[in-house]
Amino acid sequence: MPGASGAIIFSDMAVIECVPNVSEGRRTDVIDRMADALRAVPGMRVLDVQSDATHNRSVFTLAGDAPAMIAGLPVLFEQAIANIDLRTHKGEHPRLGAVDVVPFIPIDGVTMPECIALAKTIAADVASRCQLPVFLYEEASANPARKNLEDIRRGEFEGLATKMAQPAWAPDYGPAAPHPTAGASVIGARMPLIAYNINLATNRLEVAKKIASAIRMSSGGLRYVKAMGIPLEDRGIVQVSMNLTNYEKTPIFRVFDLVKREAERYGVSVLESEIVGLVPAAALRQSVEYYLQLEGFTGAQVLENRLRS
Amino acid sequence: MPGASGAIIFSDMAVIECVPNVSEGRRTDVIDRMADALRAVPGMRVLDVQSDATHNRSVFTLAGDAPAMIAGLPVLFEQAIANIDLRTHKGEHPRLGAVDVVPFIPIDGVTMPECIALAKTIAADVASRCQLPVFLYEEASANPARKNLEDIRRGEFEGLATKMAQPAWAPDYGPAAPHPTAGASVIGARMPLIAYNINLATNRLEVAKKIASAIRMSSGGLRYVKAMGIPLEDRGIVQVSMNLTNYEKTPIFRVFDLVKREAERYGVSVLESEIVGLVPAAALRQSVEYYLQLEGFTGAQVLENRLRS
Repeated sequence: MPGASGAIIFSDMAVIECVPNVSEGRRTDVIDRMADALRAVPGMRVLDVQSDATHNRSVFTLAGDAPAMIAGLPVLFEQAIANIDLRTHKGEHPRLGAVDVVPFIPIDGVTMPECIALAKTIAADVASRCQLPVFLYEEASANPARKNLEDIRRGEFEGLATKMAQPAWAPDYGPAAPHPTAGASVIGARMPLIAYNINLATNRLEVAKKIASAIRMSSGGLRYVKAMGIPLEDRGIVQVSMNLTNYEKTPIFRVFDLVKREAERYGVSVLESEIVGLVPAAALRQSVEYYLQLEGFTGAQVLENRLRS
Repeated sequence: MPGASGAIIFSDMAVIECVPNVSEGRRTDVIDRMADALRAVPGMRVLDVQSDATHNRSVFTLAGDAPAMIAGLPVLFEQAIANIDLRTHKGEHPRLGAVDVVPFIPIDGVTMPECIALAKTIAADVASRCQLPVFLYEEASANPARKNLEDIRRGEFEGLATKMAQPAWAPDYGPAAPHPTAGASVIGARMPLIAYNINLATNRLEVAKKIASAIRMSSGGLRYVKAMGIPLEDRGIVQVSMNLTNYEKTPIFRVFDLVKREAERYGVSVLESEIVGLVPAAALRQSVEYYLQLEGFTGAQVLENRLRS
């Protein structure tokens, strides 16, 4: 049977994606040890490891079923906590914990409620195992004030003790005070996220910032878009850097067309766009169907999908 | 390692596609027996069977490695020859043989030269086994006058004896005269073909015919496009019906944009387009990259491809 994305993957096998973000992007030995420990877990696939030395942060892209996740995540937490000390951690990216955020994402043969349940199971487990405060976020959080990662992370590691002293910020699991070196972790479930950037043929940063403001949900734009305007100094151009948080509802092509139209307002053209990391095939298919006005097209017509069924 | 299409399929395994067209589209028992015979061949995948009663023709889409093809195609030929008599065959689609045409198509882990060699091996085998004349075509043919399927098939079964009496039309393999009931077969190798139709919001057939003339290679259009304008009477609209014979060189998006622009000339809009049957993932990715101005994007970034490696 084709999966929700139209891709025929492992029939009857659950595929959950997990994208832990860890606060180490410089010491490759530490990063490699974490990756190797994950690879050793039966049923766990390590699809990708991206490290950023400026951010001092690494992003692991994992895939597997629920048992693989339940076995594998504690391994990662133990490694991270043993090797990372946030009291001496410096980097451009905001962080709350040694393991900063762990989203679970339904890919095929698994539902969002199942991913939420998995997030809670693992949150309870690592909180107790590692004596670590854990906050649920996104779909796993029932509290609107504690749903958005940015809201939970605000104050970062340095402000955590003060924050957790307030009743409103008691953790969902684990001790009432921060872990002395590992802070707190944020665990939850969400739709696949697409990291999407559009580069503009100008060096005027305010153009990128204005377009980002127009396109993101928070300042009146499209619902499932987070965006910021940044300079790409080595290239002398600017970028609208985005996270598309629900491509099914706010598709890539609509974001692209809107940014392009807004750029025209400033006499600026779109130079290029880029997808960072992985993107579900269905998100690409959406855009093809839009631009080619394709009717009745399904993932089952993609040759490579038929070879895998 | 990613394959040429960027899809990571069966690493190190050759995937050849074969699309035999057989002159039977009405008797489902005959068609089923041919499909079942093919399914019984080890390593042979029957991806699709499409039958058209008006054409009185069926198209099988097969995939496998060279040994599967060498074992499987003779089985199909024997079944077809035993069950189809062209002397009593009537149908809308032109035909030369009981097995009319057999293209081999490189998909992954296999080259065009390898597919050409396979076509010749199988041509020699079935010609001798079935006492059947066989003509090579497309990439397997070294003779420009005998490269195009339409040129070889012209005259159809009924004109074949006369045609083959000419020295220029001696077959590449097999007897010098047609098989009395099975005619002759055409075997070769080609790039993946995309059956692509664009429906126009008008009932003016001449608009579709003019656009088809503008877009197809034969009358001055894009090199790897065959096109015709046809009416869709049940819907009161018209269609530019196309075969895109080399999507790597003449991509879908260029065809779409050109048809759309030509239609504007007549005050007609594109209602929708459709892909008939299977399409390689890379052909879709090409179009996404074009419309989204995507830079640096590869098939390895498609989530489902990473799950299959």
